[in-house]
Amino acid sequence: MRRLLLIGIGTGNPEHVTIQAVRALNAAEVVFLIGKGDAKADLVRVRREICERYIEGPQPRFVAAADPARDRTPADYGVAVDDWHAARAELYEDLVAKNLGDNGCGAFLVWGDPALYDSTIRIIDRIHARGRLAFDVEVIPGITSVQALAAGHRIALNGIGEPVTITTGRRLAADLSADGATVVMLDGKVDFAGLDPNLTIHWGAYLGTSDELLIAGRLGDVAELIRETRRTARARHGWIMDIYRLARPAT
Amino acid sequence: MRRLLLIGIGTGNPEHVTIQAVRALNAAEVVFLIGKGDAKADLVRVRREICERYIEGPQPRFVAAADPARDRTPADYGVAVDDWHAARAELYEDLVAKNLGDNGCGAFLVWGDPALYDSTIRIIDRIHARGRLAFDVEVIPGITSVQALAAGHRIALNGIGEPVTITTGRRLAADLSADGATVVMLDGKVDFAGLDPNLTIHWGAYLGTSDELLIAGRLGDVAELIRETRRTARARHGWIMDIYRLARPAT
Repeated sequence: MRRLLLIGIGTGNPEHVTIQAVRALNAAEVVFLIGKGDAKADLVRVRREICERYIEGPQPRFVAAADPARDRTPADYGVAVDDWHAARAELYEDLVAKNLGDNGCGAFLVWGDPALYDSTIRIIDRIHARGRLAFDVEVIPGITSVQALAAGHRIALNGIGEPVTITTGRRLAADLSADGATVVMLDGKVDFAGLDPNLTIHWGAYLGTSDELLIAGRLGDVAELIRETRRTARARHGWIMDIYRLARPAT
Repeated sequence: MRRLLLIGIGTGNPEHVTIQAVRALNAAEVVFLIGKGDAKADLVRVRREICERYIEGPQPRFVAAADPARDRTPADYGVAVDDWHAARAELYEDLVAKNLGDNGCGAFLVWGDPALYDSTIRIIDRIHARGRLAFDVEVIPGITSVQALAAGHRIALNGIGEPVTITTGRRLAADLSADGATVVMLDGKVDFAGLDPNLTIHWGAYLGTSDELLIAGRLGDVAELIRETRRTARARHGWIMDIYRLARPAT
């Protein structure tokens, strides 16, 4: 049976890769490198570095492709995502069918963990449901930026006995936890508009890499510093990936 | 300067350990093994196995101790936890002071990730605040049972664009997400009382180990199977660690 390995490779620090991921990388005959077609050259470099560092013996065959374009200003968010996933399922199915034999083993490398704000599992499920390609799937968890943020700041994500909500910038206003911590991913704006200035924030960017940035404090005191640091870093790198945790101040 | 490494070692699968954790284990002269004083012999075995498997050259010195007892039926939860943390801070400070020189490097092994429902970071912060012992701290993230659950079931934790709330059994009634997914840890009862039987549940126990158990389905259909599986497994092992995800059925 054909095998597909969905491997979480962490967030930029090659040492965040697990032993299980290293073993999976070494089992793959083909590694599919799906790009965003963007300018994040640093991230491409890290992915290559991970393969070169951890794959022993003959390197696998690398199959590179760019994800289909996504409608970033859709009239209907749900429909736009569905269309995008459908296009990606067709692409991935085609890549696997053309590059992997009936008993072959292929790997998709996923930033962070395939289980959190990544759609590779859903895409692969779609291909399964189409029924044209037979394969087994294995998911290998990886360290997420949520965890890299907490480790960088040396904090627990949760207050004692309290919940943690992980959400996106788009949903922050609705999902901000009243009595727990909230971790915000995928916030393109990071303007903190309408948030209580007395919240405690732990912010981080380029986590796990040598470019890591960390800022923490009372939101009202550090909001402008974070916005300015973000602007400067984004201009310098050409991109930014950041994340932050909000919570009431510890009592 | 004395260094303390708080190392997340995953949830039972020795291959969930990261390369960063392996490097940290190898840097430690002393490894502190804090037990719960309980009968979870399997977990002691896994922790030893991790050290033996990944530490090259001379093994570090192992310092074993049992955590102070905790009041499990306190009148005031917050006060009881605070008392317990204070007792643990005294114990850990004493262990470090007696076993690690001024420039020594010691490691605490933490199940899962030190950032999620683990108090080692808070204990170490307390010792820092007491000011009697000087040290630097580094936190090494590890794969959590939340991630092992998702990988075992090959599911994403979040619905598309939706939040994920991680909470405890004690808080489930208050924290069940209306329009996102909820992951429940540390639920000693697992009776599903009062929950909508139409929720989809993904349950797992002994995740990542050869004893892994996975059950998924409509809550109303599988609740009794989960309760019965849990009872049987707990009787056989003498303990159980399990976790589950609840969400509205996918549309």
